[in-house]
Amino acid sequence: MSLLVVGSVALDSIETPSAKVANVLGGSATYFSVAASFFMTQVQLVAVVGDDFPKEYEDFLISKGIILSGLEYAEGKTFHWSGRYNDDLSIAETITTELNVYEKFQPNLSASHKNAQYVFLANIHPELQLSIIQQVHNPKLIACDTMNLWIDTTHEALLRTLQDVDILILNDAEAKSLSGRTSIREAAQVISDYGPKKVIVKKGKHGVDLFSDSDSFSVPAYPLKQVVDTTGAGDSFAGGFIGYLAEGNDLSVENLRRAVIYGSVMASFNIESFSINRLRTLTRKEIDCRFEELQSMISGR
Amino acid sequence: MSLLVVGSVALDSIETPSAKVANVLGGSATYFSVAASFFMTQVQLVAVVGDDFPKEYEDFLISKGIILSGLEYAEGKTFHWSGRYNDDLSIAETITTELNVYEKFQPNLSASHKNAQYVFLANIHPELQLSIIQQVHNPKLIACDTMNLWIDTTHEALLRTLQDVDILILNDAEAKSLSGRTSIREAAQVISDYGPKKVIVKKGKHGVDLFSDSDSFSVPAYPLKQVVDTTGAGDSFAGGFIGYLAEGNDLSVENLRRAVIYGSVMASFNIESFSINRLRTLTRKEIDCRFEELQSMISGR
Repeated sequence: MSLLVVGSVALDSIETPSAKVANVLGGSATYFSVAASFFMTQVQLVAVVGDDFPKEYEDFLISKGIILSGLEYAEGKTFHWSGRYNDDLSIAETITTELNVYEKFQPNLSASHKNAQYVFLANIHPELQLSIIQQVHNPKLIACDTMNLWIDTTHEALLRTLQDVDILILNDAEAKSLSGRTSIREAAQVISDYGPKKVIVKKGKHGVDLFSDSDSFSVPAYPLKQVVDTTGAGDSFAGGFIGYLAEGNDLSVENLRRAVIYGSVMASFNIESFSINRLRTLTRKEIDCRFEELQSMISGR
Repeated sequence: MSLLVVGSVALDSIETPSAKVANVLGGSATYFSVAASFFMTQVQLVAVVGDDFPKEYEDFLISKGIILSGLEYAEGKTFHWSGRYNDDLSIAETITTELNVYEKFQPNLSASHKNAQYVFLANIHPELQLSIIQQVHNPKLIACDTMNLWIDTTHEALLRTLQDVDILILNDAEAKSLSGRTSIREAAQVISDYGPKKVIVKKGKHGVDLFSDSDSFSVPAYPLKQVVDTTGAGDSFAGGFIGYLAEGNDLSVENLRRAVIYGSVMASFNIESFSINRLRTLTRKEIDCRFEELQSMISGR
């Protein structure tokens, strides 16, 4: 199955209580595509970078089999985010967001992009997300992410986009804000009325919930002894989740649950290190082992 | 199997964002024994009340089959707690704690109490907990609860008590404070070195973790649309958990996991109403239905 992701490729500067890194490879589409690359080979990435984007980062993405024909090089600087985390790495305070080449980003899809059967719209402006939806040819699944900025400032555009989305993946605070409800279960119900028949609520260290008409599934986060950097956890989750779905091309209730576990596993590996560094050496065998461990951790039979 | 609980029977006055009640039936041993009573009949309660304790509350406990031969009536007033909850009912602010008859409480066990095979030491002074441990005759399981007050003010006594405890049931903040660790998994490891080979960490709306040498299990809270009053959730959990274990008299890894789910189910019913009111009309059939629902909600196979 071919999988398309449209989102950001960025350079991040991150400060945690124990360390500090500058200009490391980041961005929603990066985390997503690297995580998804462990499940299938045809991950097509659509994003834009500036002329300062390091060749080694491009080489790394290529080494993971990610198809970069949709990675545009624009004049100017790559999107740059810098942030600082609190003590338990649960909250990031943004220091600066420099959109740079993203200010004029207009994703134009190739024929190959348009034929992708699985589509992930990472956290970008809802109107850009809608333009992707309008360009693709009847994919099997469209999933998307969003953030409080869009929920607050482009509410109407976001609601329009959600009408054509199958799965919305968002965190608990966003789910509450988008729905106006304080219970996550009720929030998911309200959101499903907007369009997405499946809603995934990410709760950080408290795990992930999946809600649909026919199912309600909850998985705890894989318990790590040490968390280094939570940047990209949500996009790694989405990459594992949709990568696994696309690999099996199976949207049954049982397979969606397994995909949620695979997503959680990818997020857990990702936060063991800065940037995508843990994923540089990660193997599918390690992923499957941790999947089995988490699967057995939650079995109540 | 016979089950002994030693703890408090209290009158509670509670204020939530939506309602207010005064002098309702409360106390750790109350919530525990009522929840456990759904699983087996021989729940023996050891506690003390004052001469103001309403006859109807005693009648209710008897109607649940709880054996009250160990419920002492002392001169004076019943233990009274009053508290106020925050908006999402996750934090209780204590307004007053009037120990009253508990100031001089010295539990003396009868022969029947001493022969109980399952023992739960609810949240009372660690020295009282130890005196119970020293009185009982080699029970199959001793579980206990504690709180930050004892962790902070009677640390040595608590550590002495824990040496002879099989399962410690406590909340996440208490686990961190008792162990000095910030990761729950590491906290459980440290605590197991103090004595209890099994540690259960209650995380409120984020569910419950069970840790032992050979197992690690995590279950989310049953998702309720509306929570009315979280008082007694932890003791209802413990009552369901140990009641189910005692009923089956089975301490296998699989049965411990099922018991954690039953505990979570009992806590979820309890918080649907003030005091033990939801448990007045609850049936075993409803319990088993919700057990199956939660069990299937977490299945990742």
